[in-house]
Amino acid sequence: MDRLTIIKVGGKVVEDPGSLNALIEQFIKVSGNKILVHGGGRIATEIASKLGIESKMVDGRRITDAAMLDVVTMVYGGLLNKRIVAGLQAHNCNAIGLTGADFDLIRAKKRPVKDIDYGFVGDVDDVNTRELRLLISENVIPVIAPLTHDGKGNLLNTNADTIASEIAMELSNYFSVYLFYCFEKKGVLLDPEDESSVIHDLDSALFMQYKNEGVISAGMIPKLDNGFRAKQKGVKEVLITNAENIATGRGTRLV
Amino acid sequence: MDRLTIIKVGGKVVEDPGSLNALIEQFIKVSGNKILVHGGGRIATEIASKLGIESKMVDGRRITDAAMLDVVTMVYGGLLNKRIVAGLQAHNCNAIGLTGADFDLIRAKKRPVKDIDYGFVGDVDDVNTRELRLLISENVIPVIAPLTHDGKGNLLNTNADTIASEIAMELSNYFSVYLFYCFEKKGVLLDPEDESSVIHDLDSALFMQYKNEGVISAGMIPKLDNGFRAKQKGVKEVLITNAENIATGRGTRLV
Repeated sequence: MDRLTIIKVGGKVVEDPGSLNALIEQFIKVSGNKILVHGGGRIATEIASKLGIESKMVDGRRITDAAMLDVVTMVYGGLLNKRIVAGLQAHNCNAIGLTGADFDLIRAKKRPVKDIDYGFVGDVDDVNTRELRLLISENVIPVIAPLTHDGKGNLLNTNADTIASEIAMELSNYFSVYLFYCFEKKGVLLDPEDESSVIHDLDSALFMQYKNEGVISAGMIPKLDNGFRAKQKGVKEVLITNAENIATGRGTRLV
Repeated sequence: MDRLTIIKVGGKVVEDPGSLNALIEQFIKVSGNKILVHGGGRIATEIASKLGIESKMVDGRRITDAAMLDVVTMVYGGLLNKRIVAGLQAHNCNAIGLTGADFDLIRAKKRPVKDIDYGFVGDVDDVNTRELRLLISENVIPVIAPLTHDGKGNLLNTNADTIASEIAMELSNYFSVYLFYCFEKKGVLLDPEDESSVIHDLDSALFMQYKNEGVISAGMIPKLDNGFRAKQKGVKEVLITNAENIATGRGTRLV
């Protein structure tokens, strides 16, 4: 099977023009088929605030009421996504910006209300990569924003890490998939204060142990849970790294 | 050649959920290959105003400074475009939202400054429909926002009527293209106060005469100029109509 690299970057990397350009410089060095999945970041919070819409977060997750859904649709699906696409085109990378509504790529269900009403937040139901694969075979580079749809005309806000792993799992039926999660650090650190303490290989037993010992920070845990699940479902390699190392492949490898 | 219908709708039609749903109901009735091009409308002005960005218009054209470019990228490329796509998916129409940056579809040049500095407004240079045609052959419905790019990483604000006619002319090399311009009236009216005064067939001699006599309103003139130019460049049929008549094909036909 052909190699396909899926690179997920956080909102912070893409919201600042300087770091976005640095990311694009690294991204174009990655050889072969590739997909970029981007997060949302603080621009949505800033713009919401200017529009008089209050941002509510619970455990780092955004509560998305109807007004906030419009903001994230504008910022994630419009501003950030199209800036990245235009930036890639400037390097002769033929990119296409997508949300989960385009091509019916990702259908989701509005998260059921239990203790917390997350509002218009979607949990992924179904991934349909037919047209995505057609474009990949034409050397087009998909750039995917963290939005899905419910098949009834509603967009939904969906975690970008989840979107990356869901697409990676589905595409593992057709490609040898390498999934890279990029964040600010060089990898998963044994000591959060020491950038040289990167864990190079992390297996699930060690992950459990570190998790129980509290070595791995709370914010990393869902990312790693997603990553191990993807590995189990056929993704060839999962790497946790930063934007500077996507072309070198250095970081924390899940094994 | 296969028939392809390109339908351009104004921003007013798509910014209101009620009229957007009505449009979608009509649009899905149009048989065969089709493309939807949408305008921007007043939401951009409203959101800009809430963000403290002043809207400046000259002869109905928006002056687009850097802050306003971000607003139109959000509103046209994100909010409106993705709402339409999600709405079409709810009717099992496999749609894909695009700007001119996606697929390198439409390259433009920033308009040179003469009397007026329009800012980040693009005049179309080049239309590249390779991937668009591939998707059409797969029964995907492109939904195109009025944004282009300059190939150097910058998005540009571009008139939706122009985008529709440029794409129509280029695709006339591959399809028998029917170009429909939708606005609020049933067609070009002899008497702007009388909806029953639709001119059914308008040729360029009659257009010149009406233009000189001041019968045709100033706002219609660029639309008709675009339309006649498209007809000369191989577009099979150009129709001026309203959203209610896109499936019936009634309105003003350029002949």
